[in-house]
Amino acid sequence: MLSNTPSNFSEQKVDEWLALAREFLRILALRKKDQFDRRVSVGDLLTERTDNAAAYGFGEGTTMYDNVLVRGDVRVGRNTWIGPGCILDGSGGVLEIGEWCSISAGAQIYTHHTVQRSISLGEKPIDCAPTRIGNGVYIGPNAVIQMGVTVGDRAIIGANSFVNRDVPPGARAFGSPAQIRCN
Amino acid sequence: MLSNTPSNFSEQKVDEWLALAREFLRILALRKKDQFDRRVSVGDLLTERTDNAAAYGFGEGTTMYDNVLVRGDVRVGRNTWIGPGCILDGSGGVLEIGEWCSISAGAQIYTHHTVQRSISLGEKPIDCAPTRIGNGVYIGPNAVIQMGVTVGDRAIIGANSFVNRDVPPGARAFGSPAQIRCN
Amino acid sequence: MLSNTPSNFSEQKVDEWLALAREFLRILALRKKDQFDRRVSVGDLLTERTDNAAAYGFGEGTTMYDNVLVRGDVRVGRNTWIGPGCILDGSGGVLEIGEWCSISAGAQIYTHHTVQRSISLGEKPIDCAPTRIGNGVYIGPNAVIQMGVTVGDRAIIGANSFVNRDVPPGARAFGSPAQIRCN
Repeated sequence: MLSNTPSNFSEQKVDEWLALAREFLRILALRKKDQFDRRVSVGDLLTERTDNAAAYGFGEGTTMYDNVLVRGDVRVGRNTWIGPGCILDGSGGVLEIGEWCSISAGAQIYTHHTVQRSISLGEKPIDCAPTRIGNGVYIGPNAVIQMGVTVGDRAIIGANSFVNRDVPPGARAFGSPAQIRCN
Repeated sequence: MLSNTPSNFSEQKVDEWLALAREFLRILALRKKDQFDRRVSVGDLLTERTDNAAAYGFGEGTTMYDNVLVRGDVRVGRNTWIGPGCILDGSGGVLEIGEWCSISAGAQIYTHHTVQRSISLGEKPIDCAPTRIGNGVYIGPNAVIQMGVTVGDRAIIGANSFVNRDVPPGARAFGSPAQIRCN
Repeated sequence: MLSNTPSNFSEQKVDEWLALAREFLRILALRKKDQFDRRVSVGDLLTERTDNAAAYGFGEGTTMYDNVLVRGDVRVGRNTWIGPGCILDGSGGVLEIGEWCSISAGAQIYTHHTVQRSISLGEKPIDCAPTRIGNGVYIGPNAVIQMGVTVGDRAIIGANSFVNRDVPPGARAFGSPAQIRCN
């Protein structure tokens, strides 16, 4: 449990630190509001979306919110928007994402899963496969892309969809599991 | 890539700062546990949900977790609960949300989308339309409301639903895309 | 609105603090990359997943990201993986989760809901019921488990599913609302 041991912080010192932190964060929030007309989390007050993307070698013009989890080998092209709460998983193989994509808030793209590992109570290994998202792909909010899937250029993945097979270029995938319609 | 340049921080100084930060956060976590019987993120340890809502002019009694992204012109009434990980997007028009609503964790409400912009590789503009959520509306966890939708008073939006058309007052919308049942 | 009152912080002092904070976070990010080959949020740079789980009495080998919301009475066994953005709600009764489970990113497990409370504009109470997740259960990304549900050992819950009734041991639940298939 949360240990309740004595501390070299007095309650008064904690109050002082908290007041300072909140004043600092309030000023950062005013700056973000002026610059981007948006309210963001503490993590995003302390970081810049362009810096977050550049620090991982993503392409020019690509932006990424602070609370995106990036694992392993993830490569992202230029001008792609990566929203808050996304998971970009290159832990089970390369995850490649093209340019001009929208990776909407809460979208999760995988190169592994732990289904067999979990239901075997840890006896079986993790399953892995590389995943590829083309150029100009729209991935809607909270959509989940399973490991091993290829999504073709200019495809549209609907919000809250679960995509467990390939999506051809220009196709639309909607639903959970997703049904795919080609134009 | 993450730059590995020399720093005016020694590794030892980083260790000292980290130990201080963790001790500070541990005491804040004890306070939150005593006050609300909950464990929250670092962002929520440093902020209060009522302050977060009040700072954006939302109504009295409304609360909002730290990692909610608010963009543009968003108006929220009284006594509405806004969970962690939500997106309230007023970037493409006014987003109006009434009183006594539940905006459950991970719910996302939009006034824009980037489908055409993405699949045109940036040639076409962003689509925009205002969105309105009435009073007493329950929006379930991870539900997504598309731009331009009106959700009537006392409607119920199921968890993980994707709502892409209007929901009349008192109706229920479930599924992705959501099917709507009137009582 | 965000108050614009004068501050005992000068803009220059805010710049200095921000530069220091970013340098500190950059070094923490390098450490996480070396240790886990992953990029994490500011909250996860300041905390360790094993500590987060241990602080709430969860079993040995269990890990939990920083931005997991834990409410009320939540008990978790050993070797369970709890991803970022999850909600573990024991506010309406005990939430019990077994060992070797995968609680994938964005999954939400409830012992209460506010449907009646919302649509009655606060006149009716919150609904509550305890919830139980067995051992070796895989809960996919963004899945939502309603209050009162029992999920049996080694069951599989698909990504983006909404589970509103019991899932027998070894069964699979997919979709929103979930359809259940027994083997």
